[in-house]
Amino acid sequence: MHIHIHNEPRGMDQAIDAATFEAAGISGHHVTFGQNAADFLAQAATLEALVAPPWELRRLDLFAAPKLKLLQSTSAGVDRLQPFDMIPPGVILMNNRGVHGEKAGEYALMAILMLVNLIPRFVTEQRAGHWERKTASLARHQRLTIVGLGSLGGASAAQAKRIGMKVTGIRNSAEPHPDCDHTLTLAGLDGMLPETDILLLACPLTQATQNLLSAGRLALLPRGAGVINIGRGALIDETALFDALDAGALGGAVLDVFHKEPLPPGHRAWGVRNLIITPHMSSDDPLTYNAATLEIFKANLAEFAAGRRPLTEVDRAKAY
Amino acid sequence: MHIHIHNEPRGMDQAIDAATFEAAGISGHHVTFGQNAADFLAQAATLEALVAPPWELRRLDLFAAPKLKLLQSTSAGVDRLQPFDMIPPGVILMNNRGVHGEKAGEYALMAILMLVNLIPRFVTEQRAGHWERKTASLARHQRLTIVGLGSLGGASAAQAKRIGMKVTGIRNSAEPHPDCDHTLTLAGLDGMLPETDILLLACPLTQATQNLLSAGRLALLPRGAGVINIGRGALIDETALFDALDAGALGGAVLDVFHKEPLPPGHRAWGVRNLIITPHMSSDDPLTYNAATLEIFKANLAEFAAGRRPLTEVDRAKAY
Repeated sequence: MHIHIHNEPRGMDQAIDAATFEAAGISGHHVTFGQNAADFLAQAATLEALVAPPWELRRLDLFAAPKLKLLQSTSAGVDRLQPFDMIPPGVILMNNRGVHGEKAGEYALMAILMLVNLIPRFVTEQRAGHWERKTASLARHQRLTIVGLGSLGGASAAQAKRIGMKVTGIRNSAEPHPDCDHTLTLAGLDGMLPETDILLLACPLTQATQNLLSAGRLALLPRGAGVINIGRGALIDETALFDALDAGALGGAVLDVFHKEPLPPGHRAWGVRNLIITPHMSSDDPLTYNAATLEIFKANLAEFAAGRRPLTEVDRAKAY
Repeated sequence: MHIHIHNEPRGMDQAIDAATFEAAGISGHHVTFGQNAADFLAQAATLEALVAPPWELRRLDLFAAPKLKLLQSTSAGVDRLQPFDMIPPGVILMNNRGVHGEKAGEYALMAILMLVNLIPRFVTEQRAGHWERKTASLARHQRLTIVGLGSLGGASAAQAKRIGMKVTGIRNSAEPHPDCDHTLTLAGLDGMLPETDILLLACPLTQATQNLLSAGRLALLPRGAGVINIGRGALIDETALFDALDAGALGGAVLDVFHKEPLPPGHRAWGVRNLIITPHMSSDDPLTYNAATLEIFKANLAEFAAGRRPLTEVDRAKAY
């Protein structure tokens, strides 16, 4: 099979080079590398599988590759590709879900403990040069609600249980989860919010989850509650969240994702009270990211070669 | 026995009132409550045991209480009382060590994860309205050195092991600790610093530990290392630490204690790069603090009544 690896040209992340690919042990294929549309077009006539970041796919004319069968995204979130009209019919889209779990769980544990310990508040007071002592109790006295129990949310639930929290999970079916005290479907979220101390968003962005944390739902959270977002920015009505933080209605927020990324200089978010901003790094471990993605790709190739559906195939109707 | 409870008059912390005392189940005593020197003097002739915050003891004339035998500090750190000359000879000083462990361990876990995830750096960049994506790996790739393996340091070591870190403990004797990969005495610290990614100070302040993290020792840490202090401010040469942070020689610091507390407005600390400041709250759980202190006092009273040394008696020579 002819596999083409298209690397992110902006150099934000480490490239998948020949050495990385070889280390993954994917053998018996013709492999080419590129980083722009011209490189892609030079290989388009024969390539059958493409490995690329999803945000690059609008720059590449996938219809110019008549033999393309497999498309391996180097990201789990493929929301930006909806309605998937740049992908020719019949091409199987696969993401790398599962790669982000361990790192995301550790970030979630940190963010939870930061909210329990009032860090967003103290950082805001530090900016003003103001010392006001306030003590905080233990995480095990707080109630966590996690929206999404996939790789990110599941790992977060496991970390939260380890520190003794009461954990409620929101997922598509209300089937039990080993690290949640109970699970609900999205229909149960509104009833749960008034009993939530910390709300963690860890679900994909889809039409069903767009603006999930609306102004109305924010108002259902108890005074002093905390919000964490490691999913996608558009899960939240940002203006409503920033208003609630500035008004002191919420205790704080730790956000890793935003409507607009990178957040531009002068954006309102930079100055919002009791808000901690991290630059979309919660779920990516630079030491293992490419190797883990290629491991998934390798398993997907094997399934495809055996005539089965690849393990991380994206359901285009659901968008994850 | 006549027990006098002297509460903190500045109201920073919750008072030990009659209900709290009764809930502790310390029965069969004559108990009085006060919050200033006059209240104390009114009881001085007969009181035999005094419960008080250590920083209040310079305001009270303990020599005016001829029957005083037991002095229960409501804090673990009694460094401010050195050389203990306000305490009449023969009076047994007891601290509340052990009360702070669980809370301190959770704070330490948070601070470690914040340093692993570059939060001090991101908070500094947030202040400048600047987005610069940088990824960070997992805590289990980092090496933690903890100075002090008492209640605070021991609980911190347990939390760090749970997230897979390599943990070195520095203690008075090099005897093994169940949550440390190995232990060293203070004499081994200099040799350990170049192999330390995160240094956590959790020891009492004594003559031996004053200025422990000196400019010379700071220079032994690798570039990008992190520092956490949940002990006492004077364990660190603050100027040297702030210089190292501002110069970018260290990755970041999370400090809960300072030479001068409260940190006054305009203090240099407020503007130091890659520094997170919390207002001396790392080890105090407001939900359990007084109850846990009184539990220790109760056990100390029982030991004393049985003719034995109280369990948390302070060794005045060591100052803890």
